[in-house]
Amino acid sequence: MTSELLNSLRQNDTRVLSGLISAVENGDDTISETLNSLFPHSRDSLRIGITGPPGAGKSTLIDKLIVQIRAEDGTVGVVSVDPTSFFSGGALLGDRVRMNRHSLDPAVYVRSMGSRGHTGGLARLTHQVADVIASTGKDYIIVETVGVGQAETEIVLNVDIVVVVFVPESGDEIQIMKAGPMEVGDIFVINKADRAGADRISQLLQDYMSDSSGQREFVPQIILTEATEGKGIEQLWAQCRTLMAELQQSGTIRKRRNEQYLSRVRNAVHDELAARFWNSDRESVLMKQIDGMRERHLSPYEAADQLVNELG
Amino acid sequence: MTSELLNSLRQNDTRVLSGLISAVENGDDTISETLNSLFPHSRDSLRIGITGPPGAGKSTLIDKLIVQIRAEDGTVGVVSVDPTSFFSGGALLGDRVRMNRHSLDPAVYVRSMGSRGHTGGLARLTHQVADVIASTGKDYIIVETVGVGQAETEIVLNVDIVVVVFVPESGDEIQIMKAGPMEVGDIFVINKADRAGADRISQLLQDYMSDSSGQREFVPQIILTEATEGKGIEQLWAQCRTLMAELQQSGTIRKRRNEQYLSRVRNAVHDELAARFWNSDRESVLMKQIDGMRERHLSPYEAADQLVNELG
Repeated sequence: MTSELLNSLRQNDTRVLSGLISAVENGDDTISETLNSLFPHSRDSLRIGITGPPGAGKSTLIDKLIVQIRAEDGTVGVVSVDPTSFFSGGALLGDRVRMNRHSLDPAVYVRSMGSRGHTGGLARLTHQVADVIASTGKDYIIVETVGVGQAETEIVLNVDIVVVVFVPESGDEIQIMKAGPMEVGDIFVINKADRAGADRISQLLQDYMSDSSGQREFVPQIILTEATEGKGIEQLWAQCRTLMAELQQSGTIRKRRNEQYLSRVRNAVHDELAARFWNSDRESVLMKQIDGMRERHLSPYEAADQLVNELG
Repeated sequence: MTSELLNSLRQNDTRVLSGLISAVENGDDTISETLNSLFPHSRDSLRIGITGPPGAGKSTLIDKLIVQIRAEDGTVGVVSVDPTSFFSGGALLGDRVRMNRHSLDPAVYVRSMGSRGHTGGLARLTHQVADVIASTGKDYIIVETVGVGQAETEIVLNVDIVVVVFVPESGDEIQIMKAGPMEVGDIFVINKADRAGADRISQLLQDYMSDSSGQREFVPQIILTEATEGKGIEQLWAQCRTLMAELQQSGTIRKRRNEQYLSRVRNAVHDELAARFWNSDRESVLMKQIDGMRERHLSPYEAADQLVNELG
């Protein structure tokens, strides 16, 4: 990466920023060096994960949080990996990006990512895009993802605090998310709290919290919002800020970042091992042998063992 | 694996079957040999993936399909990786397994799998459990998974046909699933079709189908059901059987299985490479170096590169 490019990025040149993110998404060969050079500059932003089931109103909530952050003169980047979300506003079968009111504000940068074609690498890609945006010096990075699914859960494992958003109808989703994002939730939001059932969901969350209190450093707060009306947003943002300050002071954020770094290095080692293994010779050995392996009814594990022994 | 154990399995000994699945889930060291021996016996079952958003009624649908299969004297195994589903009946925050009416029928075997703690390996684990059940000689294996999320989508990539279930309220989910399970859907079900909105969803699906018809071998049928009332189940099962027969005849199922085998071998190679790399020496090198790497602001990719170069 030329220092010129890095300078443009540090000066918040949106055109350069968008180009780099596209290069990351396309997996351009030349991108890894760039990612390495900007990584040291990506560490100052506080990262907030926002997750929850489809239809919980995460995008509206984020839109209102941006307003709140801007009112305090903060800068913010958003990476959204929920395909129904944010720019698209959940429009049914509409892929069109609806530009929103923040798009002309240089202190705000929003990027929606499709999940198509990134099998196995969605979490890595999201972390990289968040790094690129953070390297422009944004105060906050919000990472939004639909909170159902394993790869999606992994995405919010690389942030400083996690906000989990439900709606009064989310009973089933709470069950689904128990083994995932809820375990790492630091703040719980019940959005659309004017609807029937908010009390019940609040009670379910409290029960869940007291069941799991032994595994937690602190008891997450539950905040009621009506994002479309802007209700509860100020309180939510205040709680985010208070909590981030507390967790910085207690060393928790440092601890989390260290763990995240370790886990990213491990995953990068696995990617590197796979990338080095599959050169074109080995690829052609695989393609030559695969039919025979299948016909001999070798299990995939025997086949893999054989390939690694022979070629490794 | 002793041939005795394999025999018990082939004779549908449920106790042995359940024990083996638990060993697979626990990742017992001794299990890989067993999986290798039973793999050749796991290939006769036809595999049906059933996927869809939470609350689509997949578990009720499967319950009714089991009745249908039993009425034809078929045998069936179910692997369910939707944590709200089937045995638990979607009971809110209730982890208790509610035994159902099929549990005493030796021709039916149902296994629910939690997704907790299987990060990165959920698809592999599901494939293994499906293999183990299939090796008892079941005619059909149904693999159920919540159709939101990348790892979850991978799960249904290892079946012969995929049924995607929606409800009239599923507009948002259709959007989310477009880049995932919908691309591999062979039959679409609109369950709870008595509710308002069924026509609209049906239209959305038809639009989607005609948009993507160029990428498809055939146009998937849309079937309306009311699973709780048993309505449409016979038609759904008839369509599953017809389609499987057609796809067997056209060679499509063979082609899919070949691709699935290739993909499983590739993934097993990656697992094997990672497993061989992380011996205890390398693990301790990592733990010794990680703090320094972080302090030098090495990106995870530089750190990984360095580790693989040094240790590989």
